[in-house]
Amino acid sequence: MRGAVMYGKGDVRLEQLPEPTIVEPTDAIVRNAASCVCGSDLWNYRGINETPKPRPFGHEYCGVVEAVGDAVTTVKPGDFVIGSFFSSDGTCPNCRNGFQTYCLNAKPMIGCQAEAVRVPWADGSLVATPEQPSADLIPSLLASSDVMGTGWFAADAARVAPGMTVAVVGDGAVGLCGIIAARQLGAERVIAMSRHAPRQRLAREFGATDIVEERGDEGVAKIKDMTEGVGADAVLECVGTADAMDQAIASARPGATVGFVGVPHGVTIDGTKLFRSQVGVNGGLAPVRRFLPHLIDLVFNGTIDPGQVFDTVMPLDDVAEAYRAMDERRAIKVLLQP
Amino acid sequence: MRGAVMYGKGDVRLEQLPEPTIVEPTDAIVRNAASCVCGSDLWNYRGINETPKPRPFGHEYCGVVEAVGDAVTTVKPGDFVIGSFFSSDGTCPNCRNGFQTYCLNAKPMIGCQAEAVRVPWADGSLVATPEQPSADLIPSLLASSDVMGTGWFAADAARVAPGMTVAVVGDGAVGLCGIIAARQLGAERVIAMSRHAPRQRLAREFGATDIVEERGDEGVAKIKDMTEGVGADAVLECVGTADAMDQAIASARPGATVGFVGVPHGVTIDGTKLFRSQVGVNGGLAPVRRFLPHLIDLVFNGTIDPGQVFDTVMPLDDVAEAYRAMDERRAIKVLLQP
Repeated sequence: MRGAVMYGKGDVRLEQLPEPTIVEPTDAIVRNAASCVCGSDLWNYRGINETPKPRPFGHEYCGVVEAVGDAVTTVKPGDFVIGSFFSSDGTCPNCRNGFQTYCLNAKPMIGCQAEAVRVPWADGSLVATPEQPSADLIPSLLASSDVMGTGWFAADAARVAPGMTVAVVGDGAVGLCGIIAARQLGAERVIAMSRHAPRQRLAREFGATDIVEERGDEGVAKIKDMTEGVGADAVLECVGTADAMDQAIASARPGATVGFVGVPHGVTIDGTKLFRSQVGVNGGLAPVRRFLPHLIDLVFNGTIDPGQVFDTVMPLDDVAEAYRAMDERRAIKVLLQP
Repeated sequence: MRGAVMYGKGDVRLEQLPEPTIVEPTDAIVRNAASCVCGSDLWNYRGINETPKPRPFGHEYCGVVEAVGDAVTTVKPGDFVIGSFFSSDGTCPNCRNGFQTYCLNAKPMIGCQAEAVRVPWADGSLVATPEQPSADLIPSLLASSDVMGTGWFAADAARVAPGMTVAVVGDGAVGLCGIIAARQLGAERVIAMSRHAPRQRLAREFGATDIVEERGDEGVAKIKDMTEGVGADAVLECVGTADAMDQAIASARPGATVGFVGVPHGVTIDGTKLFRSQVGVNGGLAPVRRFLPHLIDLVFNGTIDPGQVFDTVMPLDDVAEAYRAMDERRAIKVLLQP
């Protein structure tokens, strides 16, 4: 089958790879309806994360179950399924607590930018849709596999509740999905921090009530102006840089929580500053699996449409160009059709 | 009147000070039934915090209202009242959100180690007891003014909920009160990290179900042994050192929150480590005022008895000796009788 292989900085290739097969009785094989490129894939593509040796790449997927191991009971061949970027056994203490990404037996999904993929722990990882989705639902189901689930976790971790004013730092796909999540969780006002017109439009489409273009101290001042001088009730940090975290904490009111889902690069939090701000920080690798059933419902009943983050669609064969388009910010997020 | 004055390292003196008077129409004068020395007072006594010039000291108090300004409506002369270490107007956005310590017009209480004290923002700051307390309730009411309120906030910030396993880092008065709070909030198991026999006894008295004497990696390993290998559901950090914060984060399971109330000294949190641990941190200066009505109820109906943290009682005249006893850890906490 065809699949993407990451070689390192600026070098992703489409190659012929062996068809995945059932290895453990808890495995499933999923034939992908679609895959995509993640902002976090760019860390390797940009050479910021090392790639010691070439490897199949991509961790977002949805598609049809083709085969299952003997121990699998909750999904069967023919089911349309979605999983997250980690497979999880569903039974360990962390899974039971709803933090499946920290499953004691977690296995990161790899090689999803391909025609098919092996999913370990199928019972703990996959969620079947109520029926075969129509083609127009595929982008939103695929988005649920990572960016929508991660955006939801940002809002969940930030403890967004009805009536709140929520600020969102980061206008990438995760930040944009965070806006959807904040509105779904009842936020009355959602302030998107964005200076890119196409992303601002999508932010408004997703429910942002206000846009703040300023960054740093000026951005914080704007947020304070809008919140009786105290800051937002909850803040979603969806970038992962030190500047973004500083901005998020400074934009939050005493008692607010910053839900952070941007993989931190060079972020250090000063304890005294945090104590004095009375702002909580809460985040990590999103336990997307916890949210999948609810997200699938919301997609199927037309309440949310996170698939709009895919502003570009390409055939899997053009995966190298897909990485380039995202690296150069010509695309918010590229969907790959096998 | 007599009152304590902090001069700097190792130097606290009892002096004759002017009687406090009503300055603003929102003030009250409270004649103290008791005051005490706080662990945080030792930062100045030990010269870690600077004392640029001598100043009246102490921030914990309870007693009888002697006079009120013209604008005060919720307390009257003769009421027995408790306040916290900050006075707050009760009306600003932060007060309305329950974070009164961050009142936009907050004034830190000073000079409470004295016969009487002026309380600004009396309406927003003071809570009257349902009736005059008997003498045996005074220590617990005084404890509510700071350490019990702060311990409660540690548990509240750590989001302690029924059935949880909670670890408490720090066996000072705040940590011990945190044990009371965790139990009141429904924790099934409370693990006190303590290596001092008298404090262990009080920890058990307050509801700790387990004691862990080990610190650092060994302490963390013990906690993990007790929690299916994943860590505690909530952790209270009641010290403020880098070691204590590290220990707290490492002892918490993915998805848990560390409630931190120890004033940080040299604490830095690595963003990547925090992200990978999936542990939230949430704390600051405790909004004790929010908890006072509930704490007073619990003290009056005999449910809690945090006054036991006062293992030593001295006359106000011996305030210098009170500081020495706490500095040398001969006393957990000293109550001062005017």
